[in-house]
Amino acid sequence: MNNGKNIIRLLRYRIVLLRLQEMGIDTVYSYNLGREIGVTPEQVRKDFSQFGIKGKRKGGYNINELLFTINGIFRKDELQRVILVGLGNIGKSIMQYRGFSRNMIQIIAGFDIDPVKYKKKSHIPLYPMEKLEEVVRELGVITAILAVPTQVTQETCNLLVDAGIRGILCFAPLHLKVPSNVTINTICISHELEYLIYRTLKKIEGDPAKLV
Amino acid sequence: MNNGKNIIRLLRYRIVLLRLQEMGIDTVYSYNLGREIGVTPEQVRKDFSQFGIKGKRKGGYNINELLFTINGIFRKDELQRVILVGLGNIGKSIMQYRGFSRNMIQIIAGFDIDPVKYKKKSHIPLYPMEKLEEVVRELGVITAILAVPTQVTQETCNLLVDAGIRGILCFAPLHLKVPSNVTINTICISHELEYLIYRTLKKIEGDPAKLV
Repeated sequence: MNNGKNIIRLLRYRIVLLRLQEMGIDTVYSYNLGREIGVTPEQVRKDFSQFGIKGKRKGGYNINELLFTINGIFRKDELQRVILVGLGNIGKSIMQYRGFSRNMIQIIAGFDIDPVKYKKKSHIPLYPMEKLEEVVRELGVITAILAVPTQVTQETCNLLVDAGIRGILCFAPLHLKVPSNVTINTICISHELEYLIYRTLKKIEGDPAKLV
Repeated sequence: MNNGKNIIRLLRYRIVLLRLQEMGIDTVYSYNLGREIGVTPEQVRKDFSQFGIKGKRKGGYNINELLFTINGIFRKDELQRVILVGLGNIGKSIMQYRGFSRNMIQIIAGFDIDPVKYKKKSHIPLYPMEKLEEVVRELGVITAILAVPTQVTQETCNLLVDAGIRGILCFAPLHLKVPSNVTINTICISHELEYLIYRTLKKIEGDPAKLV
């Protein structure tokens, strides 16, 4: 998971670098990036050197070169296509999320069992679940966002795997059982909130000024 | 962050334990829990012993005792109250999320600058942003979910801190600048998706059967 953390940091550096590039800036220093991301300059340099990225002789990094390398690591040269399974509240907010295109991600199809949901007007083609396998094979897509109710998450995950999906981003607080060639990433909003509350209370306890 | 991982695991064990308790089961073994969560039995025992939780002499853990201890760690004896700032797509899906009550979390107020959003009918009281400080002080709430557009996230965060908020769950891909007595947890859905795609492609490359 340490590895995961530095991958996520690279993605964060990328956001800052894109902003600087838009502003016409050429060079960035590790302390600039560190401050924006909330890590030390040493951490920035360590992260970059792990991916073979070197600074300039006079110090600093060329922003275009940095972005070229980071984009290469994440295959940002081509659009990454993803399907969305489950068009409930979370699904809808993901469909309308504007941050994906900037990150070269496109949701190319949505699925649900409920005709009310998949028959809605949408800028993304929507299908009933029975069409899943056919559409996945046709589009050659391998990653999916899974945002169905918890109690049907595992069975829906099985359908995805059978259809040829190899990477799943899951929003249910579950450990999905999948074959070893399938990759899972789980976001549980409730757990993240509980973890935040736990840390907040700990910090207040440790604070001599405490909370009034 | 290692520490964070075991905290999140405790929350995952808790979900499994609640389900078992509902089914009337008394005792659970580390391998049962490990299988559900996707970790080894050793990891389960290590996690528990770090929080002073011991198994029974004959092996296994008493589910009621386990839940009592875990609930104590997370202060689940009292409802944890949170406000929601930003009633856009993500905000709405969080308001409608049903998993919080089971985890003793309640969203007690929502805020937005847009009258169309805060004047909507809702089971949660909604307010304009100008009411933030007043409502936060009145309710004595210290944690907030921040789901406003990225470009206004830092300034909204400043308002929260000024109003007395001490813990913030943020959905923007930003490093928020806050005083040291404020705790931040960030969920960036796009980065999690990019991290998944990265791992999925790596796994396929490493797979001798590859993708056809």
